[in-house]
Amino acid sequence: MPSLPGFFAAYQTQVNRALDALVPAPSSPSPVVDAMRYTLLATSKRVRAVLALLTADLCGGPTARAIPAACAIEAVHAASLMLDDLPSMDNAPLRRGRPSAHVEFGEAVTVLAAFGVLNEAYGHIARSYEAPLAQRLTTLLSGAIGLDGLVAGQAEDVLATGSTVTFDALERIHRRKTGVLFSAAATAGALTAGGTADDVTALSAYAKNLGLAFQIVDDLLDVTGTSAETGKLTRHDARKMTFVSFSGVDGARELAGELCRTAQEALTPFGRRAAALNELAEFVAARRM
Amino acid sequence: MPSLPGFFAAYQTQVNRALDALVPAPSSPSPVVDAMRYTLLATSKRVRAVLALLTADLCGGPTARAIPAACAIEAVHAASLMLDDLPSMDNAPLRRGRPSAHVEFGEAVTVLAAFGVLNEAYGHIARSYEAPLAQRLTTLLSGAIGLDGLVAGQAEDVLATGSTVTFDALERIHRRKTGVLFSAAATAGALTAGGTADDVTALSAYAKNLGLAFQIVDDLLDVTGTSAETGKLTRHDARKMTFVSFSGVDGARELAGELCRTAQEALTPFGRRAAALNELAEFVAARRM
Repeated sequence: MPSLPGFFAAYQTQVNRALDALVPAPSSPSPVVDAMRYTLLATSKRVRAVLALLTADLCGGPTARAIPAACAIEAVHAASLMLDDLPSMDNAPLRRGRPSAHVEFGEAVTVLAAFGVLNEAYGHIARSYEAPLAQRLTTLLSGAIGLDGLVAGQAEDVLATGSTVTFDALERIHRRKTGVLFSAAATAGALTAGGTADDVTALSAYAKNLGLAFQIVDDLLDVTGTSAETGKLTRHDARKMTFVSFSGVDGARELAGELCRTAQEALTPFGRRAAALNELAEFVAARRM
Repeated sequence: MPSLPGFFAAYQTQVNRALDALVPAPSSPSPVVDAMRYTLLATSKRVRAVLALLTADLCGGPTARAIPAACAIEAVHAASLMLDDLPSMDNAPLRRGRPSAHVEFGEAVTVLAAFGVLNEAYGHIARSYEAPLAQRLTTLLSGAIGLDGLVAGQAEDVLATGSTVTFDALERIHRRKTGVLFSAAATAGALTAGGTADDVTALSAYAKNLGLAFQIVDDLLDVTGTSAETGKLTRHDARKMTFVSFSGVDGARELAGELCRTAQEALTPFGRRAAALNELAEFVAARRM
């Protein structure tokens, strides 16, 4: 059995190829398609997609069947990054080691591209699965994006910028911005492989804690990392309360470690079959990029 | 059989009630939900929804079954208006007789609200129909919004602002921005009522010409109407090429009339059963608001 780095490399390649096919290069000039591809195909760890493929594998695979769902989740994530970086939101000039989409394509085209990417995510699910699974994945995804997920989290984040938030509010924001989509990725992977309700419950609990840990490490890297490592402008979140402003560097690293252990505990029922997911939690807690 | 004004009033009431339930008032303060409801529930002719309900009725109804699809289409339209009006796009301060969403809620919240409304449209379809129909409607909607529809049309429109476009480009922009969603509305209504492939072909042809006519009359009203009538800032499209700049007021009105007659020709197979849709075409050609 290959270990995590092997999975990562293989899965990233498969997902990148599928994303390339999801929004093909335009046959005539189209800045909005260019902007969609610019963000969709930028270098990325594809951690959400890898998570979906690993849970599919754990539930009996085949992982190939999870690829469209994994791509839909990555597409939603990419769309959310385009919006996060806008001048009216985080005003971030750098993303994934390159100028942010709005710097490259302007605001109007970027907003339309994000809208278009979300739209393609739904279309892709409808085209890729038999109807009952497509319906279930659509419901799952819309719950993760909507008023108890990504959109609500990002709105609260934007409105909190520049003001004081409580630790609870910060946690709620990041559970919604990151935890919920991680959880949807793990659930989607399991569903494509016919995972049981118990599988889904355990994997979703694993993923939601993993997602929050991932975000805390993001905050840490904003303080301790360099742009070369993170691909983003570091120290840019200074206007914002982060987990580091609450707990300090050591406290935040400890919190991330705890969440990863909580995530791992949810894997107990799977025993040794969850080796790769256990390793993914170790990776998230220790990552430097 | 009630005539068109009777249908309009009854259908608008049903659709408004369903849209109110689609995004319920938030139980705790949420500007993004307020922004979604602000645009979704603003006074509107609901012409796309009425179109869907009329085609459902024509195909044997019941129209109640078409309401969720009609709401999804209205939601997509509302989301597209929020984006169209943004400072980076048309920079329109007034919409449906009130300040535009970004004037009321700011750009960040408005962009997230538009994203959220699109997301709810897909979630609503998945929750409202049995799986095969949900899948078909999702595919239909994503095609209408995507790279040969709304997003592509709006992107070309934005990029063409301030420069010269050909008549063909203008027609392509508005077929994508308006015609394609009208066509999806008519098709969706027919599909919820079990319409045949021939029904869908005829109704889609009707609707796509109706949609373009609707847009041309919009351009006319921008020149000949008042803000009190249109609910928008008139003469605001002066920076843009419109059908009126190509054909003049009389020429544009003639073109709209021709398109409505072409739309009506597509209804021939339905005979007297298409009376309300015929009347809708007359209304679109003659409307003053």
